[in-house]
Amino acid sequence: MSAKRETRIASILDCAEKNFVEKGFHGAGISGIARDCGISVGHLYHYFPSKESLVEAVTKRELTRQLERMREFENDTPQMVQEGIVSTISDIIMRKEDPFRTVLNFEILAEAQRNPSVADILQNHDAVMRQEFSAILARAGLDSIQLRTELLFTMFSGLPARALRHPEQERATFLETMKPVLESILGDCWDDNPKKPK
Amino acid sequence: MSAKRETRIASILDCAEKNFVEKGFHGAGISGIARDCGISVGHLYHYFPSKESLVEAVTKRELTRQLERMREFENDTPQMVQEGIVSTISDIIMRKEDPFRTVLNFEILAEAQRNPSVADILQNHDAVMRQEFSAILARAGLDSIQLRTELLFTMFSGLPARALRHPEQERATFLETMKPVLESILGDCWDDNPKKPK
Repeated sequence: MSAKRETRIASILDCAEKNFVEKGFHGAGISGIARDCGISVGHLYHYFPSKESLVEAVTKRELTRQLERMREFENDTPQMVQEGIVSTISDIIMRKEDPFRTVLNFEILAEAQRNPSVADILQNHDAVMRQEFSAILARAGLDSIQLRTELLFTMFSGLPARALRHPEQERATFLETMKPVLESILGDCWDDNPKKPK
Repeated sequence: MSAKRETRIASILDCAEKNFVEKGFHGAGISGIARDCGISVGHLYHYFPSKESLVEAVTKRELTRQLERMREFENDTPQMVQEGIVSTISDIIMRKEDPFRTVLNFEILAEAQRNPSVADILQNHDAVMRQEFSAILARAGLDSIQLRTELLFTMFSGLPARALRHPEQERATFLETMKPVLESILGDCWDDNPKKPK
């Protein structure tokens, strides 16, 4: 793909994403996206033949970002895995959530139930996420890696919803409380010699 | 409110909900909702002066359902709380999720970030949920009830997203795995005499 074409596609996806975030996948229209992007509808169709294809491309881009955030774990040494996970959850809890990203995440989850193509993209992406994360846990010498991954992903998936439903929560205290739970997922309550969490 | 008026309102909310689930809050229109309901747009406006007011009413009704499901816990005796929670999570994991309900849940979470009225409804509702659930844990003799409630709500909030992202997961095994985590939230890893999970 030429650099010019790539830049144009990225710019269209930025405009589409902004419209989807503001109006939802179903409320946003091709003409508004083209207008925001400063191109004609015909020109936009040259790159994306339908709104459906834009929804799919925006979904894939957002899920790729989630995957890239997860890959930051891969730089951790095995000994650092548990601390790395706690520190990433800490980041999510302590910093202000980027509302842009969270809207898109919930739009994708709602749309996956209406639209089989979006469901496929989401589920294929999740399989890659699970596989890569399980490999990190395996390198750390843990067993039951699929199940631990599923439990951690459940906890991670719940955090954005909680940040929305209970925004005034004192995050530092919550984080401190979460540590024994993470430790129980990552080993302390599973092995033959359970340590008492601090 | 007269019984006839109440029935009519319930029927309009059913049609609105169906449209919102199929097309999103932003994609669905008043005219389609009125048509599905077999009434004129003018008649619909007699009950709901705007789409906004319909979005809010559908949101409130869905959140009330979530509250009612939570209140089933209140019939548990104190000794049964931990088993009651595990069994409710079991229900969620084992039965096929009602896709209707889950779409609406994610629509509400996305909309809460665009629409301050929906955010208010969601946050006020969550405050009631937290208060009632904390009271259940207090009756069971637990300390740190707010933090335990928040942790359990985080786990619960993550489950629908996981069911969507990983639908082929073997649920019975996952449920079994979740028990030590729930036990760590509900006491075993918090007190002075941690039991080793079975």
